[in-house]
Amino acid sequence: MDVKPDVNGVVNDENRNHQPATIAGPTNPMVTPLLTDLYQFTMAYAYWKAGKNNERAVFDLYFRKNPFGGEYTVFAGLEECIRFIANFKFLKEEITFLRETLPPTCEDGFFDYLQGIDCSDVEVYAIPEGSVVFPKVPLMRVEGPVAVVQLLETPFVNLINYASLVTTNAARHRFVAGKSKLLLEFGLRRAQGPDGGISASRYCYMGGFDATSNCAAGKIFGIPIRGTHSHAFVSSFMGPDEIIEKSLISHDGSQTCEDFTSVVQTWLSKLKRLGILKGIFGETNQSELAAFISYALAFPDNFLALVDTYDVMRSGIPNFCAVALALNDLGYKARGIRLDSGDLAYLSCETRKFFQTIENEFGVPGFGKTGITASNDLNEETLDALNKQGHEVDAFGIGTYLVTCYAQAALGCVFKLVEINNQPRIKLSEDVVKVSIPCKKRSFRLYGKEGYPLLDIMSGEDEPPPKAGERILCRHPFQESKRAFVVPQRVEELMKCYWTGNPDKERAELPTLKENRERCAQHLDQMRPDHMRKLNPTPYKVSVTAKLYDFIHFLWLNEAPVGELQ
Amino acid sequence: MDVKPDVNGVVNDENRNHQPATIAGPTNPMVTPLLTDLYQFTMAYAYWKAGKNNERAVFDLYFRKNPFGGEYTVFAGLEECIRFIANFKFLKEEITFLRETLPPTCEDGFFDYLQGIDCSDVEVYAIPEGSVVFPKVPLMRVEGPVAVVQLLETPFVNLINYASLVTTNAARHRFVAGKSKLLLEFGLRRAQGPDGGISASRYCYMGGFDATSNCAAGKIFGIPIRGTHSHAFVSSFMGPDEIIEKSLISHDGSQTCEDFTSVVQTWLSKLKRLGILKGIFGETNQSELAAFISYALAFPDNFLALVDTYDVMRSGIPNFCAVALALNDLGYKARGIRLDSGDLAYLSCETRKFFQTIENEFGVPGFGKTGITASNDLNEETLDALNKQGHEVDAFGIGTYLVTCYAQAALGCVFKLVEINNQPRIKLSEDVVKVSIPCKKRSFRLYGKEGYPLLDIMSGEDEPPPKAGERILCRHPFQESKRAFVVPQRVEELMKCYWTGNPDKERAELPTLKENRERCAQHLDQMRPDHMRKLNPTPYKVSVTAKLYDFIHFLWLNEAPVGELQ
Repeated sequence: MDVKPDVNGVVNDENRNHQPATIAGPTNPMVTPLLTDLYQFTMAYAYWKAGKNNERAVFDLYFRKNPFGGEYTVFAGLEECIRFIANFKFLKEEITFLRETLPPTCEDGFFDYLQGIDCSDVEVYAIPEGSVVFPKVPLMRVEGPVAVVQLLETPFVNLINYASLVTTNAARHRFVAGKSKLLLEFGLRRAQGPDGGISASRYCYMGGFDATSNCAAGKIFGIPIRGTHSHAFVSSFMGPDEIIEKSLISHDGSQTCEDFTSVVQTWLSKLKRLGILKGIFGETNQSELAAFISYALAFPDNFLALVDTYDVMRSGIPNFCAVALALNDLGYKARGIRLDSGDLAYLSCETRKFFQTIENEFGVPGFGKTGITASNDLNEETLDALNKQGHEVDAFGIGTYLVTCYAQAALGCVFKLVEINNQPRIKLSEDVVKVSIPCKKRSFRLYGKEGYPLLDIMSGEDEPPPKAGERILCRHPFQESKRAFVVPQRVEELMKCYWTGNPDKERAELPTLKENRERCAQHLDQMRPDHMRKLNPTPYKVSVTAKLYDFIHFLWLNEAPVGELQ
Repeated sequence: MDVKPDVNGVVNDENRNHQPATIAGPTNPMVTPLLTDLYQFTMAYAYWKAGKNNERAVFDLYFRKNPFGGEYTVFAGLEECIRFIANFKFLKEEITFLRETLPPTCEDGFFDYLQGIDCSDVEVYAIPEGSVVFPKVPLMRVEGPVAVVQLLETPFVNLINYASLVTTNAARHRFVAGKSKLLLEFGLRRAQGPDGGISASRYCYMGGFDATSNCAAGKIFGIPIRGTHSHAFVSSFMGPDEIIEKSLISHDGSQTCEDFTSVVQTWLSKLKRLGILKGIFGETNQSELAAFISYALAFPDNFLALVDTYDVMRSGIPNFCAVALALNDLGYKARGIRLDSGDLAYLSCETRKFFQTIENEFGVPGFGKTGITASNDLNEETLDALNKQGHEVDAFGIGTYLVTCYAQAALGCVFKLVEINNQPRIKLSEDVVKVSIPCKKRSFRLYGKEGYPLLDIMSGEDEPPPKAGERILCRHPFQESKRAFVVPQRVEELMKCYWTGNPDKERAELPTLKENRERCAQHLDQMRPDHMRKLNPTPYKVSVTAKLYDFIHFLWLNEAPVGELQ
């Protein structure tokens, strides 16, 4: 089991790396065994004091409801969990801190015990990262000494919740935007803190985005990075007079234009005189013109201009076109423009017409297809609205709503005890959706004739797995009347072993980010379309075997207190 | 200028600490000069290529709208910004990465330039952290070489946005809960990533919370930590038979109870036989009873039990009371219970009655006042609803909605160029709210007779500051008709210098987290109540001087392109 070289994470503190594992530490060095709730330590002490700390427990990590009003979720964050447990070890100063934090009555032996623990006796089974997943089905099953596994609850849930939420959000944005559009994640500045930003870049890429603006994330995860300039760059110039170095060598190196500024000015005059554009613009903004010329001189091969600092159609577009045409004279092809305000549907269509007019009037092949990028508070709804109105945008830069998951800022993954000492356990609740599904379980995805997944089914660990071609009764875990016989065409077991200290057991390799991204795209593609649609999607069915159903309800009755009516 | 010892942040990579500054690096070591948008580097290159990189620029950092439908915001995140620039220096490998990332046409000289830059020539003026602040008024003014200051945009905005948002959210929760309640931040598991959790703990404390469940945050920032046990702890026990070590020494050490379990069982029988409780409960859950006994044996001085694993009134409360009464026999006082589901208003009132019945029936003084903590998806609205219904909760544990700022997951701080080379600059927009206020500015808070702040006013840097007792015209920056004469009783300049490389200038000290927390509480207290109320709060006025007003509108006309109608 190896971390692939393209996931070039920060390697953790050497003092923690005592284990033979070759897995790098968590990407964020702040992810330490102390990054957990205090009650995990008070419980650990109570388990230790009761002599229960080494009892073998099984916990399921799962969520109860798909986010964003949808009927699917993408699972992410597994690699960070494995990195965390592969390097799980308390530093001396952390033990000292805990000793000062817990009540003084806590016995010394407990702190010696804590100092000694690691995750060599823990096993983690999980669905591969990037998979499409559904409520109630365990994303991870974590087995090990109860006190140790309990300490993992908070960091695991923290590492999975946001990762899965933002990957799902990215996948939903990709779904609405369509496959042909370039999607750029621009969220760092609005993200919830520094690694909110870094994680967002990573997981948006996994969920189907093409690139990020975030350099740190680009470096750490090997994600393509994009960016050009801001409004401040435009307004930092006063006018073309301040451009001193005006020469530009042609793309093929065969000639030098000594005064690029003049060539641009000439093109601007030509555009102004063009009858077909009459009335669209008069004097363009001179700061903006100077900024565009300077940017083109710096990046003649990558000229992409932000055109809305003063006025898109009256200034930004004509200024851009003059510079692009001057570049074209020297064999360079301008990349395009970015719109960051206003009516993006209308402005993109007007801009496209302007570009096509230039292609036709001046005979510049391909100019009509010059790229149009749009940004400015985009989300699923605005993308959908743009599609309905009709637009000419080729690339979308999406920030705030994507990375903060503004439409629903949290996913509710939980971590529930399902077995201890081989005894199945259940957590009851007034609210049926909060009742946990007991037992150490396996889960399977059953596929139908058309290749679509039909449903997921959970069984007790010792039950024979469902087989392709064999009829199986699939029951809703809590609603007696909901059940169906299914004859699957194909059966896929969902969880693999990703972590074990047992050298005889095989550990699944952690895939690269690119592999997870591909799995995500492939899983999304193979879903039946009615589960995926934005409006009233069909819920995907999650079921249990008849045997597990009976056992759940036996245990439920057994644990629920009986009232005494007078 | 020193970072106080209680802000015990991770000290950054030694290679960065080349500067004489004694300020520790960012709390999260992932905050590096690469944690910025790529366009900051492409702009830096274009500035450098145009010979503009050292032009002196002034940027304002501000937001446009208060979050959560309110009329105030609390400013936070400044200390992290100062830590960041105090240690701002590129590592060789970062330069190598940038060289590979930018187009190959970029000249070598630029990378030598980048390798050499630091923030010794940058100045940062800011409002003190923990202050109540308002839209459009600069939270920070950052001056320095345009290419360097531009690189700071993304990390500064990232570090301020979430910090201010979550501090404001915490302050709003405190406002609704009232001063007498204990507020506990329980959000780590649902936060947006690891430092979403760590930052949330820090800034919720600043905003008025009393403690966190997050051990890492407790260690780094010296915040009180709280926690007891979860549902899993309860369901990990099968029944009292499995408790082997049953002895407990009395609180004063004078006697040892050899079989604490029996004493608890006896109390449970007494409770069951008590006429006044008849019909409330019958057989309680034995797993739960065993878990409570074990927890009490481990923490006899800190017994707080989660009572809703099976059934609050039929099992959790009677089991808790039996254990609490047994502890009471030995001189220990139980801390209380936690409710994590169901109707918190109703259950807390029923629980209080139960406690009071015990106080009266068994003559246990103070038992009626045993603490009741509530958790379970609490937010401003549910706290408000609980207040209206009436409840008996003493402490609230708040997670998801607090730390992810679910009601509004992002604050929109921006960083706008307002002056370069002593030339004021403006950013126009179709949307007036997006037009920037040009010029290097000062800002002041004017206080009225009753001690409340009346309004904030911005002026050009060279204007004479407003004086107490002198009449001043305060104008809305964009709406001509909105203006008022004000005679302030007191005038407070809002920004101080927190960072300068100039040894002759005085730098304000960075306060401790506790000091910022106190400032926050004090600022919130002194606001006029109608600005603070939840429903339809009165907007606080933000204004400019008459001279600045005139200049804004002169510049606006000057920069806006004029159309040519045919």
